[in-house]
Amino acid sequence: MKLVAAQLAASVLKRCAALAACTDKPGQTLRTFLSPAMEECHQLVRVWMTEAGMTVHIDNAGNLRGLYAPQPNLPRIILASHLDTVPNAGAYDGILGVLLGIALVEAIQPLKLDIAIEVIGFSDEEGVRYSIPFLGSRAITHTLDNRTLEQLDAEKISIVQALAQYRAMHPEVQLSDIYPDTHGYLEFHIEQGPVLDQQKLPLAVVDAIAGQSRLTFAFHGKAAHAGTTPMHLRQDALVAAAEWISFVEKTAAAKPGLVATVGQITCEPSAANVIPATAKCSLDIRHASDVEREAALCEIQQQAEKIASQRNIDLEVKKHYDQPATLMDSGLIHLAEQAIKLAGYPAPHIISGAGHDAMILAPHLPSAMIFLRTPGGLSHHPDESVHKEDVQAAIETGIVFLELFQKESRNQRIA
Amino acid sequence: MKLVAAQLAASVLKRCAALAACTDKPGQTLRTFLSPAMEECHQLVRVWMTEAGMTVHIDNAGNLRGLYAPQPNLPRIILASHLDTVPNAGAYDGILGVLLGIALVEAIQPLKLDIAIEVIGFSDEEGVRYSIPFLGSRAITHTLDNRTLEQLDAEKISIVQALAQYRAMHPEVQLSDIYPDTHGYLEFHIEQGPVLDQQKLPLAVVDAIAGQSRLTFAFHGKAAHAGTTPMHLRQDALVAAAEWISFVEKTAAAKPGLVATVGQITCEPSAANVIPATAKCSLDIRHASDVEREAALCEIQQQAEKIASQRNIDLEVKKHYDQPATLMDSGLIHLAEQAIKLAGYPAPHIISGAGHDAMILAPHLPSAMIFLRTPGGLSHHPDESVHKEDVQAAIETGIVFLELFQKESRNQRIA
Repeated sequence: MKLVAAQLAASVLKRCAALAACTDKPGQTLRTFLSPAMEECHQLVRVWMTEAGMTVHIDNAGNLRGLYAPQPNLPRIILASHLDTVPNAGAYDGILGVLLGIALVEAIQPLKLDIAIEVIGFSDEEGVRYSIPFLGSRAITHTLDNRTLEQLDAEKISIVQALAQYRAMHPEVQLSDIYPDTHGYLEFHIEQGPVLDQQKLPLAVVDAIAGQSRLTFAFHGKAAHAGTTPMHLRQDALVAAAEWISFVEKTAAAKPGLVATVGQITCEPSAANVIPATAKCSLDIRHASDVEREAALCEIQQQAEKIASQRNIDLEVKKHYDQPATLMDSGLIHLAEQAIKLAGYPAPHIISGAGHDAMILAPHLPSAMIFLRTPGGLSHHPDESVHKEDVQAAIETGIVFLELFQKESRNQRIA
Repeated sequence: MKLVAAQLAASVLKRCAALAACTDKPGQTLRTFLSPAMEECHQLVRVWMTEAGMTVHIDNAGNLRGLYAPQPNLPRIILASHLDTVPNAGAYDGILGVLLGIALVEAIQPLKLDIAIEVIGFSDEEGVRYSIPFLGSRAITHTLDNRTLEQLDAEKISIVQALAQYRAMHPEVQLSDIYPDTHGYLEFHIEQGPVLDQQKLPLAVVDAIAGQSRLTFAFHGKAAHAGTTPMHLRQDALVAAAEWISFVEKTAAAKPGLVATVGQITCEPSAANVIPATAKCSLDIRHASDVEREAALCEIQQQAEKIASQRNIDLEVKKHYDQPATLMDSGLIHLAEQAIKLAGYPAPHIISGAGHDAMILAPHLPSAMIFLRTPGGLSHHPDESVHKEDVQAAIETGIVFLELFQKESRNQRIA
């Protein structure tokens, strides 16, 4: 198995490099929802799927779908990720998961497993064209609402219009759906963070995708002359914000699994010799437990109020959104852990701090994710990379996972 | 004296209001170096100076100068401030000092003092037109260097060209200079800060004009995903900056007379879900003692280095300028204190955190300043105000000051 996996890993990496050349913007990799570069990408992936013995079609949301079904009516598992990219992207985010799916179909054919595998390359996960992510996976779960569909891109083309154009060009499209007999969803994805790299481990089982809140905290003090206003008579909005930012960091560092980030700050009037009247900060806070996230957010907000009141400053807090945490399926988590271990690797568990298609699928289908180490944690960057040995480990793990999945589903059918 | 002073105070306030209507920008008060509104302002002030028995001329830097000299060759004192304004200005900053000078000439005439008084309305102190302040006072002290004179305004007219045009329009201009027999300089000015208002005191003697340093502190960390990067693996430039901003405030609050302000902050890449790679802060630090200012700056810089090194972050510090503190003349400080007390008011001493024309004159002439309370500390704002009683107190004080000054200079002449 190791030899086959090594060869397939080399092929997966070559294919990732080939897809990185399909771009809407010369000189970098950028591939967006229903774009010409995505068409070009589909041509390549379609060939690889067909060569792997799959029947290929596109669905009416632009998802590329290949089915490997040695017999009709077999229990089916989806192996999927996305084919679109951020601007100036690397070669692995999303794409690697799709190509690992194809490699696994190639790998398991000699094993004659009685399961069907559907590999999906989602048309949009990054949300670059419409500033709305997960269009592909939301389409197959029928969770794209009408308001979303009216969203316009930079050329003022709505999603509805773009899809209509796409369907006109591709009259062979089939319904975007989770097709019958589908019993599970597995997504391989690079970690996009530094944890596995720091721990020198190739793979991890994802237990949950963290819930997330986004807010703005605006401190409103009083502008005054930086030279003539003694320290004790100031209402400096920026020093209030600074005190609060330190508290945010301290709070997150003290709670395992919590991350909290102030990524944006602006101050007004923003002159070197004027005490800031206003300081406005973003807050992004995430945790695998909604209760923990909400408790920490409450603490952070109370501290902001305390700092503001001590400094005679007004505080204005706006919440932009709350996204609850998504647990992966416990049965599939267990299978993934077993598979990694049986393949001969340590099987740490991890929380995904970023959103993934698995998050959209999880309410509709038992879903799991396996992360591959990301060297340096570097992602969304042309220097994004993976180790070939880790891709091989993922293939070895995937083969075992599919064997275990077949065994489970056979047991269920017998029971 | 009180009755005369009260009448003169009322007249001074009426004149301030009249000058606020001379503006380069309808709907607000704005009057810049050699502008049409400044010409209009000169017309009014020239009339008031002439009515007060003064001979009036303009000098070749656009300063309006009125001389009250009951006899030739008397020892002379300058009472001055500036006639230009910031954009959207109040009615008192600068102007009040000039009009108090004229009121004092009116007040002391019955006293038949054997001193001459020159009232100067400087053409530029705020530096709005050329982004270079103190053009008027620098002209009379011959401290305008050639590089400054080449500076361009928004219409690409250099100071040299603007002065040439002005002189062509006003062939009667006289040399810009401190004229012979001038023995001192006194400037009345609003405090532009909240100290006297907080202490409920009308006037203060200025001991020194604070020295000032301006720097930029840039913290360079590493951008990373806000969701996937655990707290302990971050190099967050903004939390480093926040910790430092709190230290700046703490340091300044702990040292009497020190003010330190971070008025500007920017962070990059400035996305809510990306850990800041760079945070750039301005620092404005002022103290009446250069030694104290430099010691505090050293401490603040060392702490920035310490924070950066603890957080594995790079620090880049740039100094934009250092302006040493300017002490007022001890003899004139003593006279001003005596004068305030003899007029019946408490005579607190204060440090000016802002620059004034007196700072430019001090190296050339014994110089002093008296501050008037600024309600709410509000200045450079259309709601800038003064209490009429404080203007009266300033006139009463000025009369006594001039009597004491005459006495001093007579003693010196006798000695």
